[in-house]
Amino acid sequence: MKEQSYFAHYSQEVRNILKEKEIEPGDRIRITSEDMSYEGYILPRIEIGDPSSIVIKQDDGYNVSIAYQPGVELVRIDKGISLESFQKTFPEQKADLPEISLLATGGTIASRIDYLTGGVVMAFTPEELFFAIPELSEIVRFKGCNLLFNLASEDLWVNEWKKMADDAAKELNSGASGVVITHGTDCMGYSAAMLSFMLRDLSKPVILTGAQRSSDRGSFDGAINLICASWLAGHADLAGVFICMHGEPDDSYCLINRGTKVRKMHTSRRDTFRPINELPIGKIWPDGKMEFREDAEYKKRSETEVVADTAFEEKIALIKAYPGSNPEIIDFLVDKGYRGIIIEGTGLGHTPTSPPQNEKHRSWLPHVKSALEMDLFIGMTSQCLYGRVNPYVYRNLRLMSNAGVLYLEDMLPETAYLKLGWVLGHTQEREEVKRLMLTNMAGEITKRTDERAFLY
Amino acid sequence: MKEQSYFAHYSQEVRNILKEKEIEPGDRIRITSEDMSYEGYILPRIEIGDPSSIVIKQDDGYNVSIAYQPGVELVRIDKGISLESFQKTFPEQKADLPEISLLATGGTIASRIDYLTGGVVMAFTPEELFFAIPELSEIVRFKGCNLLFNLASEDLWVNEWKKMADDAAKELNSGASGVVITHGTDCMGYSAAMLSFMLRDLSKPVILTGAQRSSDRGSFDGAINLICASWLAGHADLAGVFICMHGEPDDSYCLINRGTKVRKMHTSRRDTFRPINELPIGKIWPDGKMEFREDAEYKKRSETEVVADTAFEEKIALIKAYPGSNPEIIDFLVDKGYRGIIIEGTGLGHTPTSPPQNEKHRSWLPHVKSALEMDLFIGMTSQCLYGRVNPYVYRNLRLMSNAGVLYLEDMLPETAYLKLGWVLGHTQEREEVKRLMLTNMAGEITKRTDERAFLY
Repeated sequence: MKEQSYFAHYSQEVRNILKEKEIEPGDRIRITSEDMSYEGYILPRIEIGDPSSIVIKQDDGYNVSIAYQPGVELVRIDKGISLESFQKTFPEQKADLPEISLLATGGTIASRIDYLTGGVVMAFTPEELFFAIPELSEIVRFKGCNLLFNLASEDLWVNEWKKMADDAAKELNSGASGVVITHGTDCMGYSAAMLSFMLRDLSKPVILTGAQRSSDRGSFDGAINLICASWLAGHADLAGVFICMHGEPDDSYCLINRGTKVRKMHTSRRDTFRPINELPIGKIWPDGKMEFREDAEYKKRSETEVVADTAFEEKIALIKAYPGSNPEIIDFLVDKGYRGIIIEGTGLGHTPTSPPQNEKHRSWLPHVKSALEMDLFIGMTSQCLYGRVNPYVYRNLRLMSNAGVLYLEDMLPETAYLKLGWVLGHTQEREEVKRLMLTNMAGEITKRTDERAFLY
Repeated sequence: MKEQSYFAHYSQEVRNILKEKEIEPGDRIRITSEDMSYEGYILPRIEIGDPSSIVIKQDDGYNVSIAYQPGVELVRIDKGISLESFQKTFPEQKADLPEISLLATGGTIASRIDYLTGGVVMAFTPEELFFAIPELSEIVRFKGCNLLFNLASEDLWVNEWKKMADDAAKELNSGASGVVITHGTDCMGYSAAMLSFMLRDLSKPVILTGAQRSSDRGSFDGAINLICASWLAGHADLAGVFICMHGEPDDSYCLINRGTKVRKMHTSRRDTFRPINELPIGKIWPDGKMEFREDAEYKKRSETEVVADTAFEEKIALIKAYPGSNPEIIDFLVDKGYRGIIIEGTGLGHTPTSPPQNEKHRSWLPHVKSALEMDLFIGMTSQCLYGRVNPYVYRNLRLMSNAGVLYLEDMLPETAYLKLGWVLGHTQEREEVKRLMLTNMAGEITKRTDERAFLY
């Protein structure tokens, strides 16, 4: 890796200082000012953040980022450990540890790996992972580390989900004790729900994890998330798709949340992934301690062959109902050949239905009815997110329900959307679609919700 | 009111028993079984719930609903107080109490009033209100009680919002100390945000309240909500639009949440209205005790003339971005003459932008660009709900932002949608629209968010 690209995202001022002090990629340096002193290996920066902050990897494996400013002294204290020399001294993977596979798909967590590859090389080795996060070598062996693709999570779609499902099944059926998928956080909930339906007879844990903060920041959360996810994939007596991310703003523990019942609830906090309509399945600490909720329903490990059943109908949509919303969007989707729609309704599952003032175009009912006549499936969820829809309480609800809209219990809108794509990929027979949509396949429907789950 | 309609929603079995026992509307009855005994005035039922449950108003003013079943005895113990006799004995409103106005718009809370009017009469008097909720007569006088319309809140739209704003301003400018608006809960957040922009120079409190449970149920929350809302409207040193609803599942206290920063977060819980990206302004107890958050920013009462400034551009939409979402919906809206769009993006404000596999139609960027060229306004919010969008962190964000999409800080998607309608109703000059959208007009943008506000 050339010095030029390694230091590319540092400010000109910092690059000048580094040159003057003869500091090269990976060198061990000391940064001191009046009130602090840090030592470690200098790392490249990624594109984000203050380009005058110097990032070093400390001996505890964590990165720290120090603003370069007048009064700060930089000294090279050693020619640093390089990946090459690290690889030479790297011990064999420990034979007594469980073997898992890591599938990398991009996202902020990938930035740590970018340090090593310069963001160019689309493959990495267990050694590189252990170099990045030394703790991992004491937790698991890696059967495979595959960079499936390197995408922001909002850019994923069916082909990527199929690839993830296929590769996860392949790894699990060829000996991996579990799979960790590193993933951008924005749409991690969507992918977790999708994999929950695509991976049938899932007999081992598939754990999605990522980072809310990039690895050039002191608050990088990806290391602990990946450590906890690796514990789960390798050691937990658990089968299914789960998201493992920070449970608190601090680096204390991670939550284990079911792939169909979890949602990104904050744009930037590290504990952004929250369970919706159920308590977390459990908690996991970076030292491997795990606590599972006593009444949590989940499958245990077994040796069943995992099936990646990835048939998917792409002509599906998730649309929002609200005062003033234009239901002609339904007609538009019908015209485009759509086969199914999930409505994110208000409250118990309402749409504007009986508007006053004769503004007929604002009532959703005729548009919904004509879509149903074209044999589209329409399902109802709630934009409240928490709670359950119910087609019986009010007149407007009964009008919708009687027209043929299916009320989807306590399913998240996003989960319902992806389940619908999967179900329509397998059958388009109306009654069978309805039956499957109301059959709990992967924990997406719960009969009763623990009161404490609200705003957990 | 005829017996027939008064008892219409009771089961045939219960109606037979009532007839046999010569129990008439409003009679005082006693219901006993082996393990309980209740006394009070028999009330009509509304359409919802178990038609064999008998609803009585107890002497403490609260309703209780008792399932009629074998072993339950019904006795008429007195010819009941009727509204007519209540009105005759009703004392003058207490002159030393502040005078407020109540604007009723429909929703579940209206079911209490339906007891008295049979749901037919579109007007009611202070006496009727005091008959329904006796505590109110010790809290406020009513300057006016106006049933503006009787609609489920999802069916409201611009004309209803204008009516609410106009009437609230009229009442406040003619002597009311405050206004209470009773409202369906589903879209109460939308209306509260709308009124926050339409009511300029708002110098007194406008308090929206409602009920999550209908008044035939023991868990009816509308009484306490209305009591707390009346305290606020009459007594609080507060100006602005707020929602006052249960703070906990119990009937303990209500939260005072800012109209632009509050959202219905649960389909059925009584404490469903939660503040987003700010702590509640305060709490209020049914006995009139109020606690305001010390660092809460809000206006105090004054004597300024209130202006109902209700110009509104109806051609606006709120659309959701997610993996697989079809950005052609933007073209559809452009074709329909829309003037502005709020996107509910993922994470920090993403849309599918750089999809792989050459599926160009899935990238939102070209559609967004062409809408911007047609001089539409496009604003970005986050479906995370909590947190702040940010156009700088990732490449996809910068692409959107550089194209001209405006990132709307920590504004709720729903609030941004209504603010946009209001702003475009006043100017369509692009730079002025942008300036106004980023100007904090009614607390919709906060600079810093208290950490404790997450999932409050």
